[in-house]
Amino acid sequence: MPTASANIGVVGLAVMGSNLARNLASREGNTVAVYNRSREKTDELIAEHPEAGFVPAFGYREFADSLTTPRTAIIMVKAGAPTDAVIDSLVEVFEPGDIIVDGGNAYFPDTIRREKAVRESGINFVGAGISGGEEGALNGPSIMPGGSDESWVTLGPILRSIAAVAEGEPCVTHVGHDGAGHFVKMVHNGIEYADMQLIAEAYDLIRRGTGKSPAEIADVFAEWNQGELESYLIEITAEVLRQNDAETGLPLVDVILDQAGAKGTGAWTVQTALSLGVPVSGIAEATFARSLSSHPEQREAAADLPGPDEGFAVAAGDVDAFIEDVRLALYASKIVAYSQGFDEIRAGATEYGWNIDLGAISKIWRGGCIIRAQFLNRIADAYAETPDLPLLMAAPYFAEALGRGQAAWRRVVVAAAEAGIPSPAFGSSLSYYDGIRADRLPAALVQGQRDFFGAHTYKRVDKDGTFHTLWSGDRTEIEAVDAH
Amino acid sequence: MPTASANIGVVGLAVMGSNLARNLASREGNTVAVYNRSREKTDELIAEHPEAGFVPAFGYREFADSLTTPRTAIIMVKAGAPTDAVIDSLVEVFEPGDIIVDGGNAYFPDTIRREKAVRESGINFVGAGISGGEEGALNGPSIMPGGSDESWVTLGPILRSIAAVAEGEPCVTHVGHDGAGHFVKMVHNGIEYADMQLIAEAYDLIRRGTGKSPAEIADVFAEWNQGELESYLIEITAEVLRQNDAETGLPLVDVILDQAGAKGTGAWTVQTALSLGVPVSGIAEATFARSLSSHPEQREAAADLPGPDEGFAVAAGDVDAFIEDVRLALYASKIVAYSQGFDEIRAGATEYGWNIDLGAISKIWRGGCIIRAQFLNRIADAYAETPDLPLLMAAPYFAEALGRGQAAWRRVVVAAAEAGIPSPAFGSSLSYYDGIRADRLPAALVQGQRDFFGAHTYKRVDKDGTFHTLWSGDRTEIEAVDAH
Repeated sequence: MPTASANIGVVGLAVMGSNLARNLASREGNTVAVYNRSREKTDELIAEHPEAGFVPAFGYREFADSLTTPRTAIIMVKAGAPTDAVIDSLVEVFEPGDIIVDGGNAYFPDTIRREKAVRESGINFVGAGISGGEEGALNGPSIMPGGSDESWVTLGPILRSIAAVAEGEPCVTHVGHDGAGHFVKMVHNGIEYADMQLIAEAYDLIRRGTGKSPAEIADVFAEWNQGELESYLIEITAEVLRQNDAETGLPLVDVILDQAGAKGTGAWTVQTALSLGVPVSGIAEATFARSLSSHPEQREAAADLPGPDEGFAVAAGDVDAFIEDVRLALYASKIVAYSQGFDEIRAGATEYGWNIDLGAISKIWRGGCIIRAQFLNRIADAYAETPDLPLLMAAPYFAEALGRGQAAWRRVVVAAAEAGIPSPAFGSSLSYYDGIRADRLPAALVQGQRDFFGAHTYKRVDKDGTFHTLWSGDRTEIEAVDAH
Repeated sequence: MPTASANIGVVGLAVMGSNLARNLASREGNTVAVYNRSREKTDELIAEHPEAGFVPAFGYREFADSLTTPRTAIIMVKAGAPTDAVIDSLVEVFEPGDIIVDGGNAYFPDTIRREKAVRESGINFVGAGISGGEEGALNGPSIMPGGSDESWVTLGPILRSIAAVAEGEPCVTHVGHDGAGHFVKMVHNGIEYADMQLIAEAYDLIRRGTGKSPAEIADVFAEWNQGELESYLIEITAEVLRQNDAETGLPLVDVILDQAGAKGTGAWTVQTALSLGVPVSGIAEATFARSLSSHPEQREAAADLPGPDEGFAVAAGDVDAFIEDVRLALYASKIVAYSQGFDEIRAGATEYGWNIDLGAISKIWRGGCIIRAQFLNRIADAYAETPDLPLLMAAPYFAEALGRGQAAWRRVVVAAAEAGIPSPAFGSSLSYYDGIRADRLPAALVQGQRDFFGAHTYKRVDKDGTFHTLWSGDRTEIEAVDAH
């Protein structure tokens, strides 16, 4: 039996798991136990990284015995059945007070279910969203842990030691109980989908409107990255656009097949928002844009559908102004997407009873993760000023930016519609903006229709109560006892 | 013990159930057994409708004994636990070969689960979507039954006897096995959401652009109802817009609170589409438009966000042309919404192994249901001509209509964006149109970004295989063994 010498363990030593283990081992005070189902991965890691001082285990019992109490282990295996299998094995060898962390990309209802099941054994279960990919796992990810307050006492210092650091602060916070961490990670990914689609639309409009080459547009993005749009995604967009294909000499972006893949977290974000009644139209349009692109047989069938008669060419003298319009449209649409995402987190917290500090969430996204950006400081400021902000985009800073950008945003949506260039995320975000600020919406007509065909009743602007017009009778109005 | 004298039974005698029972009883050859959990409803129905010749039962055993074999009963109770409870009770008193029909608004995965469970007892379970509300239940609904082929032999003639009739054909067909019927009913409702939102946007644009009164706009819709837009929803829109509030003398649509309710089927349709990878952006935007309208605290917070400086007023001489543009935009957007909906049915059929005749679906929607319209004949024609049509809107009839309307559609989306009038469904449908027909999409850039930050790999336009650029290395391209 080994001496218990490790304060943290990692189960699952594929790239993400071994990188996270190396990250942990590199921080002062950590001794890291490692275990993998097949022995080879463990042997390989130990051999390649003697400097890490890993404590290898070749069975769950041995793994548990190598950990000091409360035992703390991070699972880094595939979401779904493999995760359940590892949890079951750890529950057998762990004791009350120990901590099992799932660092995979679990769907938050699974995390809620697992936390409840594991809790019965007295063991703490923590679902932790970890963002930043392989590189983040090694050098500092953004970490979104849920789970109990008790687990956070032990886990907090360990996760703080390995997280990315942004402006001196580690990119980790105790998000909330049970599934809160994986919920927030899910919305992070949904926002990422929207951000990427908006950037793609901006690129497409500039390219088609100005004829600039991808390398020239890379310069535009690099310049934008110096201003209020500064972010990792803008930065890497410039890198991708500047890349040439060695084989053909063409810009790589022209060689890549234009069918976007997805791993499901965007869809989860939208599905969850629909259950919560939160309109996340920007994220939805981004998710749909990917699936639209991936149906070649439909695109082929639609290839002959006609577009505008006239081509799209911004006059030479107007190119700079057009690019600035696109920049403003991108920033405004981005504000909408983030506002919708934070709205979903707020609604989720209410639904599931989580006490989530929205400002803290925006801060831990400033480093390590894909949507890291200066911009997130503005979100933190807004929630610091008004913690129960009903609508992020209506906070003074964002309201000013939207007001400053809205005319340009309209010009860009108009140009896209006239030129026949798809801009689902730009257009949808603008419609959301115009919808949420509208004094009156034609939703009143929808209520009238619903009352007509389904007796669904309606409310009135001038008094309380629920009403129904006797449409197939004498068309008088009656007060409904209860809505149905 | 009663003599078995009824060929069909109804369980659950609230409005929908009692109307359906009366409909059944009014058709030649049917004798209808009725049962309700509380006796009062049964007594009431019997007393009020002696002409129906109902066979009342006051317990499940008595109900079963009153039915000739194979016993056939339609459940008309609330979806969820009440439905499960009735099914359990019927399974106890029914025999192999009997047929239990759930005529409620079940979520199709529940229907799949129930069919599987009930089948073990040798009893047939049929989930049947029934559309048309209370009036349809009484006089002829559109019926979408799933379930086994065996059940259809008995059930078919009964359902054909009570369904709505459109151009001589009963609005019912055996949709497919297990959950197929409730799946198709779900998508029907999703399309209904989109259709209603598009109509609401058309009304809003005409009202704001021309200053016409609701009653005047009712005339516009009544006129539209004579042409290619002819449909129940257009017809009742005119009725609703023409209605004046007795109390205030104002148009009723101005008195109704502009917060639209929803009962969840729109959200189900979008959630399911996301799982299937089908972009149903029109239905999604319609669903989101309702939830946006129903957050008064957010709308209040956003009330001061600025819109365009200039007001929106179509010049007097251009009013007719503008209205015609809106009509064309509505028709084009409607084609997109139906195309997306049929796409979802096609994808669902593939996923769940249902053999669904899409043309037959469009035909049974021509009568009895909310989206009934002439237009559905054109859909039936398209599938009759090409049963495996990859994209409905690319069929010749629709392609022609879209081509004819696209310039007007663009002008309407442009007018809305410039005027600050939300048109999420018009705009989103146009973006879908321009996306699906695009030769190249910026999805290639998204794939480049994904490969950069997550090594998600990409495909190339010029050769098979899966590739990855070593972005943090020397930026050469390698062929990936498997995508991850």
